[in-house]
Amino acid sequence: MTKAIVLLSGGIDSATALYLTKQETSDLYSMNVIYAETYDNEAEASKRLATAVRVKEHLSVFLPFYKDIENRYHPPSSPEISSAYVPARNVVFYGIAAAYAEALGAYRIVFGSNADDSKELPDAGPEFIQLMNSILNIGTRAGRESRRMEVVNPLIDYRKSEVLKLAIKLNVPLELTWSCYENAITPCGKCRGCRTRLRAFEEIGVSDPLRYAPVAP
Amino acid sequence: MTKAIVLLSGGIDSATALYLTKQETSDLYSMNVIYAETYDNEAEASKRLATAVRVKEHLSVFLPFYKDIENRYHPPSSPEISSAYVPARNVVFYGIAAAYAEALGAYRIVFGSNADDSKELPDAGPEFIQLMNSILNIGTRAGRESRRMEVVNPLIDYRKSEVLKLAIKLNVPLELTWSCYENAITPCGKCRGCRTRLRAFEEIGVSDPLRYAPVAP
Repeated sequence: MTKAIVLLSGGIDSATALYLTKQETSDLYSMNVIYAETYDNEAEASKRLATAVRVKEHLSVFLPFYKDIENRYHPPSSPEISSAYVPARNVVFYGIAAAYAEALGAYRIVFGSNADDSKELPDAGPEFIQLMNSILNIGTRAGRESRRMEVVNPLIDYRKSEVLKLAIKLNVPLELTWSCYENAITPCGKCRGCRTRLRAFEEIGVSDPLRYAPVAP
Repeated sequence: MTKAIVLLSGGIDSATALYLTKQETSDLYSMNVIYAETYDNEAEASKRLATAVRVKEHLSVFLPFYKDIENRYHPPSSPEISSAYVPARNVVFYGIAAAYAEALGAYRIVFGSNADDSKELPDAGPEFIQLMNSILNIGTRAGRESRRMEVVNPLIDYRKSEVLKLAIKLNVPLELTWSCYENAITPCGKCRGCRTRLRAFEEIGVSDPLRYAPVAP
């Protein structure tokens, strides 16, 4: 069984990647990166999912410098790049995952990013993943010695609603996930994260188990 | 003038890269990553150098999770890979530098690693740097939009003693640098960092301005 590390954001995509990987191996680890003040809920959701699937260990990594970077980063909006883009995020995240992987003697790093996001984010598409695989096999000791280091995205061909269908099929506990960008007790229902999530539920005709903040009258 | 970010470890190599870059541009920023408990002296040396060369801003990034990773990481020694190797370190460091670069609207990331280290570390040689350049031009917004993101190592062809000669020629304040791996008030003179440094001074027949810990009788 291959030892694997799953990057968890706490949302539906990464939860689905976690449950898919669980089918392949029980030698399973997870990791969440807290990189903005508002992501406490994501961190909590990641921990809940990690506990639910019984990973051997869950690592929380705190990167407070990203707050400063995001505060300064105001690029003009672009039709090609999602407003959810965070500078060099996945280079940093997969780099940290690779460091954790080497320490654990693991070679497989799994993340879940759906086809829609992978198109709109420069650091989620197939070309990026291929280069990341090359760099981890050249630039890490584990990669040099084994040539087996790999970053994989099992959801690259799934649209968001297809990921949700797969999540339901895999019995992913969707009530434990969190997709909202706000840091409230209940998801806002209005941000990009909530809207994408709710649209996917609507598309497949299923109701979201999460309770949303009441809409102001 | 190109806006540039120099990665400072506080040692002679990165200080020399800083002073070389200062000759090219005054639109200069620096960054230090604190990734182990023992690196307070490196962080202080980096700040002293940044102040001496009058960078516009110096960013200190704290990555406490690396301590946990290093505590677990005990690979068998290898003739090909330096014992100074830290898992996936430069993927993470250059990723963070790229994030900072995007926030600043900078495209040039400079680091200094001498020819000896570049041979012994999988994440410092020319092949790694080339892949890192590819990934930053594919996987960051700035890279996609400008194709100008670059990581450069001006010292890749210089042996340690040649770097030291260049440092002296550039008037690098060597008394502000720090190369020791220990966290004492004076450098130990015995660790790998000190030994490499002292050997370089000896090779070129110059004395090190640092005072070392007295040798036990």
